[in-house]
Amino acid sequence: MKTIITNVIVVTMDVQRNVYTEGYVKIEGTKITEVGPAGSLKDTKEELERTGWEIRDGQRGILMPGMINTHCHLGMIPFRGLGDDCKDRLRVFLLPMEQKAMDRDMAALSSRYAICELLLCGVTTVMDMYYFEESVAAVMDQTGIRGIAGQTVMDEGGCDAPDADTALGKARELIEAYKHHPRISGCAAPHATNTCSPQSLKKAWEMDRRNHVPFTLHAAEMDYELTWLAKTFGCTPIEYLDRTGVLDSHTAAAHGIHLTDGDISLLKQKGSGISHCIGSNAKAAKGVAPVLKLLKEGVPVGLGTDGPASGNTLDLFTQMRLCAGFQKNESRDRSAMPAKDIVSMATCQGARVLGLDKKTGSIEPGKEADMVLVETDSLNMFPVYDPYSALVYSAGASNVRDVYVAGTRLVWDKKLVFEDPLSIRKELADRMKQSAFGEIEELHG
Amino acid sequence: MKTIITNVIVVTMDVQRNVYTEGYVKIEGTKITEVGPAGSLKDTKEELERTGWEIRDGQRGILMPGMINTHCHLGMIPFRGLGDDCKDRLRVFLLPMEQKAMDRDMAALSSRYAICELLLCGVTTVMDMYYFEESVAAVMDQTGIRGIAGQTVMDEGGCDAPDADTALGKARELIEAYKHHPRISGCAAPHATNTCSPQSLKKAWEMDRRNHVPFTLHAAEMDYELTWLAKTFGCTPIEYLDRTGVLDSHTAAAHGIHLTDGDISLLKQKGSGISHCIGSNAKAAKGVAPVLKLLKEGVPVGLGTDGPASGNTLDLFTQMRLCAGFQKNESRDRSAMPAKDIVSMATCQGARVLGLDKKTGSIEPGKEADMVLVETDSLNMFPVYDPYSALVYSAGASNVRDVYVAGTRLVWDKKLVFEDPLSIRKELADRMKQSAFGEIEELHG
Repeated sequence: MKTIITNVIVVTMDVQRNVYTEGYVKIEGTKITEVGPAGSLKDTKEELERTGWEIRDGQRGILMPGMINTHCHLGMIPFRGLGDDCKDRLRVFLLPMEQKAMDRDMAALSSRYAICELLLCGVTTVMDMYYFEESVAAVMDQTGIRGIAGQTVMDEGGCDAPDADTALGKARELIEAYKHHPRISGCAAPHATNTCSPQSLKKAWEMDRRNHVPFTLHAAEMDYELTWLAKTFGCTPIEYLDRTGVLDSHTAAAHGIHLTDGDISLLKQKGSGISHCIGSNAKAAKGVAPVLKLLKEGVPVGLGTDGPASGNTLDLFTQMRLCAGFQKNESRDRSAMPAKDIVSMATCQGARVLGLDKKTGSIEPGKEADMVLVETDSLNMFPVYDPYSALVYSAGASNVRDVYVAGTRLVWDKKLVFEDPLSIRKELADRMKQSAFGEIEELHG
Repeated sequence: MKTIITNVIVVTMDVQRNVYTEGYVKIEGTKITEVGPAGSLKDTKEELERTGWEIRDGQRGILMPGMINTHCHLGMIPFRGLGDDCKDRLRVFLLPMEQKAMDRDMAALSSRYAICELLLCGVTTVMDMYYFEESVAAVMDQTGIRGIAGQTVMDEGGCDAPDADTALGKARELIEAYKHHPRISGCAAPHATNTCSPQSLKKAWEMDRRNHVPFTLHAAEMDYELTWLAKTFGCTPIEYLDRTGVLDSHTAAAHGIHLTDGDISLLKQKGSGISHCIGSNAKAAKGVAPVLKLLKEGVPVGLGTDGPASGNTLDLFTQMRLCAGFQKNESRDRSAMPAKDIVSMATCQGARVLGLDKKTGSIEPGKEADMVLVETDSLNMFPVYDPYSALVYSAGASNVRDVYVAGTRLVWDKKLVFEDPLSIRKELADRMKQSAFGEIEELHG
């Protein structure tokens, strides 16, 4: 399969941050083989057609690297919108419903639904952390998205394992099963600094490290997490991870809201990354991660939506816009956190946080062809003086026209290639109605 | 023309905040004549058809009042995305380009473009403040939107008037021309507290007051505005407006970011409103208006996008999401600023700020039929446990399916009824290319 995308503004996100305002990209098999300005293309249209190239006219859209959602809980679609404004939503709504209604089928269906949504939004890689991850990984495989299926590890157990060791066993099998998969991998994902013992953290980290997969967990997110660690160990969450020996370049700390300057130095020194989930954090009134400081110190920061129960939308356009607003506003400087840096977090930096930067996150020859064509025909997308600006401040998920993962087009003219969204939706709604979710009043399916 | 919309979740935004989870609404002529739960509908489908009712199946979407954009600069589409991250964007980009390239044709074309965009986003009423407002009002009239055309008044003059008195003369004519128009009115809109003399402010206010139209201006927005007023008059912008005698229930202060408790008391006492433009304010790093305090004191607060050069997007979904995030986060309370209050700002409170609350802003018998049907079929719109939540945290502009203004449908199945967006866009792009905008590098039309 050979495809050339022409007549596009190519935002490469390569190291030089090259932008080709009239550019093209060639895809052969799963990979990008050529990128450049239209003028440097040697073949004529006729030659391309004669030699079997499929030509896609990008119609002056913006071709960007596929976006990387570095922190999500795909299984939680049924919880979206439940108790959004409730003070103690986690304990009042989420945990009880999870206990009552979450099982393998629900997690798999929800993940399939969420992946359809992600692809339609231009997300081509997702880091998941939830339960029944062997099913989640299978769905990732079937749908064609790139992903890491993170098996939650918690000392008190969760929906799919009674304790940490069982969960670690499941993680081991998952990692093994996807060891040689070109797009999918598994990992052990401890729930948080305060819900796993140092032993569980260490076991998960060793497993992930040995298998060259990311080690991710919630860290420096919750007030009570900070208080408890300070009281019990006299340290911050990041210091605690370091003392436990699990802070290195494999580590991707989700949220990382409450960070001291010392924490930032530690993250820098160890090469660890942060998954910044501003939409979820702001809605939960938890505070704003010090992204400008982190980036200044060279700590990789990616964007994440958090689960649909927390952040509601799964697209990174919403996150980019929120990230810009919060960082600029906090620093009282409109030139702080420019659009280019935000697009970088949504793409190449996100890939770096997940250790996937050799494969994805930029449009360069040799990289996997994970790309998104953002159309500029809709009224909200005019004019385009600067494509970064247009992506961050003007664009929305609905401007995503085509999506490629590993050279395969999964979204075409704003439609999923492999699935009818209404049918997956009906399947999930039906499953929910048969479960405890069906008993919630005001459930509009 | 008689239309009944059935099979919808009706979010009325009436005083009791009634929601009909299986509801219907009847429109006769320009007005809403019946609203209620499906069970209370007396007529059968056959009777409705026999008696000439057009039936629109809302397919379980959310029917909400048309949204009110309380502060916009419709003429500024050509500036969108220009110098977004530039520290002194106003002086480096906006003012010089305005001088070089803004004229009546450009303002009219841009306004037509912006109104198309607004309608597609579910905005049915817009308060504009720019130049050549007689053309803007004409475009409002042609397109069918509800609007107030605010003629900018500035002492040093602007694009369409050499001084304040000339602008005031234009405003007078504008007000006179639309005095009896059912949807449109004109007003004199002073630019800001620091760009108009007290005399100009007073003249504009008297004119607006006499004609029962809103008096709006930028206030408590800029750092240098505050400093200058403090130094020159020893007071805050709101105190200054009060001293000048222009603070009353006709006054809608745009932005209102920097407000003291004393200012809030004054606003409350005088019955003045605030147009909250969080997207623009955050992007410009100006700070966050104390919306929770304002609402607590009963000061009406509406939402505004500001102009496309400042806020980029013109939809209130983006503003609602940002407003929630900033207010919750600032108060460190996720239950603060619940979705219901945010929808209220986007609808009935916005109408109150503009003095239009007798006409629009809620779905009630007797009100003008300004309504938006937000579909819940798209993947991002499931599940819906609470329609307010779904509108604020999950929905985006692309979920807007139908839009009615004064009983006339202007958007139908996500398409403008009266205009091809690509043609208005081409017209504007061509006009820009012939102007100084055409000389800007990287202009992608």
